[in-house]
Amino acid sequence: MTAQPFAGVLVPVLTPFTASGEPDAGRFTAFCRWLLDQGAGGLAIFGTTSEANSMSPGERMALLDHLIEAGIPAEKLMPGTGACAMTDAVSLIRHAVGHGCGGVLMLPPFYYKPVSDDGIFAFVSGVIDKVGSSALKVYLYHIPPVAVVGYSLDLVGRFIKAYPQTVVGLKDSSGDWSNTAALLDRYPGFAIFPGSEVFLLDALRKGGAGCITASGNANVSGIAKLYANWQVPQADALQSEVTTVRTTLQRYPMVPALKRIVAHFHNDPAWAAVRPPMLPLDQAQSTALLADLAKIGFTLGERRQRAA
Amino acid sequence: MTAQPFAGVLVPVLTPFTASGEPDAGRFTAFCRWLLDQGAGGLAIFGTTSEANSMSPGERMALLDHLIEAGIPAEKLMPGTGACAMTDAVSLIRHAVGHGCGGVLMLPPFYYKPVSDDGIFAFVSGVIDKVGSSALKVYLYHIPPVAVVGYSLDLVGRFIKAYPQTVVGLKDSSGDWSNTAALLDRYPGFAIFPGSEVFLLDALRKGGAGCITASGNANVSGIAKLYANWQVPQADALQSEVTTVRTTLQRYPMVPALKRIVAHFHNDPAWAAVRPPMLPLDQAQSTALLADLAKIGFTLGERRQRAA
Repeated sequence: MTAQPFAGVLVPVLTPFTASGEPDAGRFTAFCRWLLDQGAGGLAIFGTTSEANSMSPGERMALLDHLIEAGIPAEKLMPGTGACAMTDAVSLIRHAVGHGCGGVLMLPPFYYKPVSDDGIFAFVSGVIDKVGSSALKVYLYHIPPVAVVGYSLDLVGRFIKAYPQTVVGLKDSSGDWSNTAALLDRYPGFAIFPGSEVFLLDALRKGGAGCITASGNANVSGIAKLYANWQVPQADALQSEVTTVRTTLQRYPMVPALKRIVAHFHNDPAWAAVRPPMLPLDQAQSTALLADLAKIGFTLGERRQRAA
Repeated sequence: MTAQPFAGVLVPVLTPFTASGEPDAGRFTAFCRWLLDQGAGGLAIFGTTSEANSMSPGERMALLDHLIEAGIPAEKLMPGTGACAMTDAVSLIRHAVGHGCGGVLMLPPFYYKPVSDDGIFAFVSGVIDKVGSSALKVYLYHIPPVAVVGYSLDLVGRFIKAYPQTVVGLKDSSGDWSNTAALLDRYPGFAIFPGSEVFLLDALRKGGAGCITASGNANVSGIAKLYANWQVPQADALQSEVTTVRTTLQRYPMVPALKRIVAHFHNDPAWAAVRPPMLPLDQAQSTALLADLAKIGFTLGERRQRAA
């Protein structure tokens, strides 16, 4: 295993779209900068929360070009390179490695089902071999609730054994703590990031690397505070606070809800736009979401103390 | 509703790959020509069986360019334009319409789950509106066992109502006859193609347009014979024959099995190659498959009479 380029709270950054539905590079860059300023340990751009699979490979690469040109540090970036075709995955990864990105977050091929572990291994190893760069650091992206296809415990071990310098970590968005715990037990030194801050303290206590969480788009400072203080006595109270925010968010469709929050708290209504097949929250949902957040004393960037 | 450009037995054509894993345009073109000569009513290139989602949009467009240059009639082609991003779907469809293809076969966006009917409608209608061509004929591609996301009965009706000149048919690969029957009952004049010849006679008797079936790669002449004779007394016997072939094939992973069959009967071992995440049949599976086919008297292109 190799040195780990990422730790802490990574944010799968929301992608803003213009009124005509194009990726909005200006708003995206400003938001990435704000997230880093707020304490994000890295930016997992082009993940599920980013609506990355609703963008063509070319659109994703153009946005990455823009971030780099604007001075966002490449080593803080872990672009998702999800694709069903090896050729697209190779293009996306070569482009990220060419920019010096700290790593990439790699979905398994997600169209064909059922697919065997051998088939997924052939796909991922074929892509790594074609890219053929010692600078490449791959984080496996396990999100069976959405991708359906996932990385089994045994398959993760095969990758670690075959590519110890390249396959260095995993984002576990299974939502299943027992899977995260088993990964942490079996593969010490491998960087495991649960896909929700609900599991952050438990993961850190077992050697986890941090978390990569959608709700970081709204609450990165709160989650980063827990990460910074996980070994002090008030860690459980901090965990409880971030869990309250997360469970509130989870009552709504996550991506449109997060975009509604950014639109509201950044005073920028354009942020609410999503790309089909996602739909924005309707007025009633928006009102209810903001009321729910007010009830728990949530504000963007800094979280007020609730009345004791 | 509008005039129907397709009827009969359409084949989702297998895509051959070279030893280095590139799409093999020469073998592909020759095979397309052979399928048309054997009685295919059309070629649904770039479907699930074609491993289309294992190819980049650019690779698919280059193969289509090659077919057209080689003189395969565009009006016989129904390219699949499956993509998770509207931008990719628009590119693929514009390209197909530009070549004069008879229609396109359109998957719903298949990454995000769950997704609402409204979200799928926004995606598909957005793509149709962006393409903005009266020459476009869309066939909806319903294949929930693979794509997971599908077109509900009500959603199909919404498309017919909104785009009566454009959304003209559907391939039903649900494998669920009750869904096919319900579509035929509710939407007369809409071109319904079951995704398996097992349902061909039943579908034709209820007004179906034919079928679009993977096994057409191996047995197009047999299935076309049933299609040509569905109103004569021996139709049930012909149905029984094609069903026997299909149920034999279904004991094996379909795409690698079909490629093994083409490799064997066309004396061209290169045809067995697949792209990850698919894997070729191993030696034992290959031997068993060919033995099973021999038992039912199957040969490619023409089917021998079994001993009475």
